[in-house]
Amino acid sequence: MQAHEKGYFTEADSVEVVTGRNANAKDARLREVMEVITRKLHEAVKEIEPTQEEWFQAIMFLTDTGHKCDEWRQEFILLSDVLGVSMLVDAINSRRPSGASENTVLGPFHVADAPAYPMGTNICLDHKGEDMVVRGRILDTDGNPIEGAKIDVWQANDEGFYDVQQKGHQPDFNLRGVFRTGADGTYWFKAVKPKYYPIPDDGPVGKLLADLGRHPNRPAHLHYIVTADGYDPLTTHIFDPDDPYINSDAVFGVKESLLADFNLVEDRSRAAEVGFDGPYWDVEFDFVLAKV
Amino acid sequence: MQAHEKGYFTEADSVEVVTGRNANAKDARLREVMEVITRKLHEAVKEIEPTQEEWFQAIMFLTDTGHKCDEWRQEFILLSDVLGVSMLVDAINSRRPSGASENTVLGPFHVADAPAYPMGTNICLDHKGEDMVVRGRILDTDGNPIEGAKIDVWQANDEGFYDVQQKGHQPDFNLRGVFRTGADGTYWFKAVKPKYYPIPDDGPVGKLLADLGRHPNRPAHLHYIVTADGYDPLTTHIFDPDDPYINSDAVFGVKESLLADFNLVEDRSRAAEVGFDGPYWDVEFDFVLAKV
Repeated sequence: MQAHEKGYFTEADSVEVVTGRNANAKDARLREVMEVITRKLHEAVKEIEPTQEEWFQAIMFLTDTGHKCDEWRQEFILLSDVLGVSMLVDAINSRRPSGASENTVLGPFHVADAPAYPMGTNICLDHKGEDMVVRGRILDTDGNPIEGAKIDVWQANDEGFYDVQQKGHQPDFNLRGVFRTGADGTYWFKAVKPKYYPIPDDGPVGKLLADLGRHPNRPAHLHYIVTADGYDPLTTHIFDPDDPYINSDAVFGVKESLLADFNLVEDRSRAAEVGFDGPYWDVEFDFVLAKV
Repeated sequence: MQAHEKGYFTEADSVEVVTGRNANAKDARLREVMEVITRKLHEAVKEIEPTQEEWFQAIMFLTDTGHKCDEWRQEFILLSDVLGVSMLVDAINSRRPSGASENTVLGPFHVADAPAYPMGTNICLDHKGEDMVVRGRILDTDGNPIEGAKIDVWQANDEGFYDVQQKGHQPDFNLRGVFRTGADGTYWFKAVKPKYYPIPDDGPVGKLLADLGRHPNRPAHLHYIVTADGYDPLTTHIFDPDDPYINSDAVFGVKESLLADFNLVEDRSRAAEVGFDGPYWDVEFDFVLAKV
């Protein structure tokens, strides 16, 4: 019998020695997951060949990341985000037929009880920033309008903050709203042009980004959850393609299919039609839901 | 240009999208390490295909592991230990020519200032447990004795605790000592037969072990750091091959070459020769140092 079959450690058979202990795991999924994690972790260590000092740096990075987590801050989710893991898990769990709108990450700023509004409402309650109209259709993959689709939208303000980050400074439920489509499947609402903003970068993850020569910014975007009976729920963003960070989202949320056009309308009569008295940004984007 | 070359996320090119951001990393080693970590992490996620709930369980496991760490407890080192990572890093950093004694992990219980003793001293200061004599030679890889080798030894008592874990209950520096070889390269000292003991298992790592159907125990062993001028320092253990956990060390510290023989001597005249008045355990083990 070879050393590793007796449970003794060898460098060459390190994976088998460790995963060989899991025969009595409480469930098969945990055993499977830990087999993959152990194997990939050992592969990484064998490729990196860390010194003892580097190994200890990794231990302390994880420890500091844990210590940064509290009721309000989830530094391990940030780590998952900046390593593209959150996007990868989202992609794996939202594979859709060609033509359907793509998912992206939910993010930490959704609230469950945003107010429902009639189409055309301005969700910017303090009227700060550059006016914007967002409009389009909710369609199925055959191009037919979906009636009764629910559009839950939220966004940061023109300073790059969500209402929940600036309590007292922004009105409650600022830049949030829920809309429901009629028979023609169209939607429209008024808001302000969003701005890029940084993820929290005063912790170990921000330090890692800096050491990697990366900035912490997310390009300007609007968040959506679009749902309709009989269709796969869509959690996504639309992005401003002219944002300075559009090609370098710190959390990799940008997919090419989620770039919208932000067109400046300077025509006063068009502005008057939508209820603005000066130039505004016009954003048109159709969402396509896949049948479940 | 393809989507990932513009910095946009795709499931297929997820690794390239993420590692492509590190071109301006502050040093080449960090960039190399993060390239491997990102690639292996994404490989693991693609093979596991975690649900969002499983991903969140992993986030919470890491968070809980971080929260368990304090000045006295290092739960991430425990995690590294029980996944065989600590042993793997140790093995990578202590590859030696054939014939030289093998390393194993240092563990958390070494103290720097253990007392120096003449050969034959009993390091068990409270005389609790089954008497033991440990003896052997410090040799080079040609089989020649090494003069002036320093042997720093420490072990748990017959209840499975180190002195630093039972302050007040065990004498200070109990079962620790430093010895130095003469011209013949031999060493010997008296102690007590060690017992297996559990690693701390009241945290997230202990819960993981339980879920994997694994026990938290380390088989009985003695720790050594053996050093001599001109030789590669050796950090290792010797193990009792009859321990119930010898084939399932919770931290994978056992290597086949580190099994010693623990022989019970019942001959009263031999006992009298070493200064015991009853049966004792005789342990003989030679350590072989590699030249630097």
